[in-house]
Amino acid sequence: MKKYLITGFSGFVSRHFLDLLYDKREDCEVLGVDVNPPSLDITKYSDRFPIEFKQVNLLEKEEFQKIVKDFLPDFVLHLAAFSSVSYSWQHPTECVLNNTNIFLNVAEAVRAINKPCRILSVGSSEEYGNVDKSMLPLKEDMELRPVSPYAAARVSQELLSRVYVDGYGMDIVLTRSFNHFGPYQDDRFVIPSFLKRIKAIADSKEETGVIETGDTTIVRDFVDVRDVVKAYHMLLWEGTPGEIYNICSGQGIALSKLIEIMADIVGVSVEGRVNPDFVRPDDNRVVIGSYEKINKHVGWSPAIPLEKTIRDMLSTKE
Amino acid sequence: MKKYLITGFSGFVSRHFLDLLYDKREDCEVLGVDVNPPSLDITKYSDRFPIEFKQVNLLEKEEFQKIVKDFLPDFVLHLAAFSSVSYSWQHPTECVLNNTNIFLNVAEAVRAINKPCRILSVGSSEEYGNVDKSMLPLKEDMELRPVSPYAAARVSQELLSRVYVDGYGMDIVLTRSFNHFGPYQDDRFVIPSFLKRIKAIADSKEETGVIETGDTTIVRDFVDVRDVVKAYHMLLWEGTPGEIYNICSGQGIALSKLIEIMADIVGVSVEGRVNPDFVRPDDNRVVIGSYEKINKHVGWSPAIPLEKTIRDMLSTKE
Repeated sequence: MKKYLITGFSGFVSRHFLDLLYDKREDCEVLGVDVNPPSLDITKYSDRFPIEFKQVNLLEKEEFQKIVKDFLPDFVLHLAAFSSVSYSWQHPTECVLNNTNIFLNVAEAVRAINKPCRILSVGSSEEYGNVDKSMLPLKEDMELRPVSPYAAARVSQELLSRVYVDGYGMDIVLTRSFNHFGPYQDDRFVIPSFLKRIKAIADSKEETGVIETGDTTIVRDFVDVRDVVKAYHMLLWEGTPGEIYNICSGQGIALSKLIEIMADIVGVSVEGRVNPDFVRPDDNRVVIGSYEKINKHVGWSPAIPLEKTIRDMLSTKE
Repeated sequence: MKKYLITGFSGFVSRHFLDLLYDKREDCEVLGVDVNPPSLDITKYSDRFPIEFKQVNLLEKEEFQKIVKDFLPDFVLHLAAFSSVSYSWQHPTECVLNNTNIFLNVAEAVRAINKPCRILSVGSSEEYGNVDKSMLPLKEDMELRPVSPYAAARVSQELLSRVYVDGYGMDIVLTRSFNHFGPYQDDRFVIPSFLKRIKAIADSKEETGVIETGDTTIVRDFVDVRDVVKAYHMLLWEGTPGEIYNICSGQGIALSKLIEIMADIVGVSVEGRVNPDFVRPDDNRVVIGSYEKINKHVGWSPAIPLEKTIRDMLSTKE
């Protein structure tokens, strides 16, 4: 029986990870921590595994350390993060604290219990930064050129992870997760935000409408959150310590194309209008990843097509 | 008239920088900040320039911000750091806070005053990490492989610096400073520590003695602190924003050889005995830098030979 400690427990990725454990009927125990309480009733999982939530700010090092010491996890799925690039431009200090420093507190808490425990350190495709098109798809051994405070904070987390693996002999597996999306995602993020506004057009009974956007010529690699949590589970069980794994679809799509697809599915016609306020400094132009490595190491590949994810997002009620 | 704000004001590097301003008779004003008060009487400089000290912990963001806002510096010489590799293995969290996070607080405080102000962000040769001998001497465009918490924290500082230059348009010049040493250096550091014990052998009237050491086969590039502060001054005035500059002697010397040279100068014979407790995990084997870039950009080169530095250290009274 394995004990999972999940940080960032109240986010949408955690929720999908719990669904995965539930569907697998895995013999396990779960403790979730987050600075905010979860929005869903977690007792819905408790017929299949013990599950508990503790409210804690990961910057409160001692308090978190005590929780880890009491629970003695086998796995730490470290999802907690301030993961918005635009927020990081507004609040760089908080971004570093809530990515790099909280990771350190997690690593230190696990180091202190002195028993085998694997940490999954979640990173981001943003770490690659602006790369020449000739370098696509992005592979894990490429040089990193982070261009936002968020990206720099994630690279720092990764550098520290490797120091913890090589210097302290800790068991940390790393990811660079590309844009993930799916049901229950907060609509501060790009796809739910577009979808909400496209649905509003449909609800208004108009056949056509305008939504304000940032630069929609940028290309991103979107991967379904349910594929992502499957990857996290496989890496917790079978990943190699100190190794970094891209988690991505391997496909790039321009935001403008994505809006078209979403509008088609919703059944309206949408015109995107660029608001310069939404255009971010130094945005990466094209992000497309390669999942060759994770496929080779643990057999993962993305399975859910983009259109299905969008349909599921439309049909999911909170 | 330029206003210098110096962080890490109570350290030995700052002291040499003040001597340089004094000797240059530069028309300037200095405000020093440090968590500890300076050990020297700073009024000794005040016949040539106004100088003041304020005690502040750079982690106290608001307090420091107020100081910067009141002083409105033209230059920030950011020397404050927890710069011991071995300390960083013992206290990784504090190491990151007192390198990466304090740098961020400095950068944010300067960003908030919204006037032209150059920051010199001091980094370390440790950032290069373990490199193959074929890659020597180390150049600024090499890939970094930090192998200690200290090195990772410094690389993080550097990544953030570049984001601040490219994303916020700030004026930050970066260094990777190699092992600097000289008069007034704290004897927690390697050369003063050796020298103190070698002097103790001489003082005991023995002709020969034993000192305990870490691994003395490692090779480092030592540069006189007075050459270093000259480089800092040149970079503040003439460096290029966003550029990183090695500050080094270009020469490698094994610690065993260094002990021999110091023993010769003191006039005793010394045997080094390795204490495994002093050997650090994952220590970089050979560190030798190239100062070609800083020489090309601002004309700096190291001038003071190692033996002179050691003699000066021996003859300097606090």
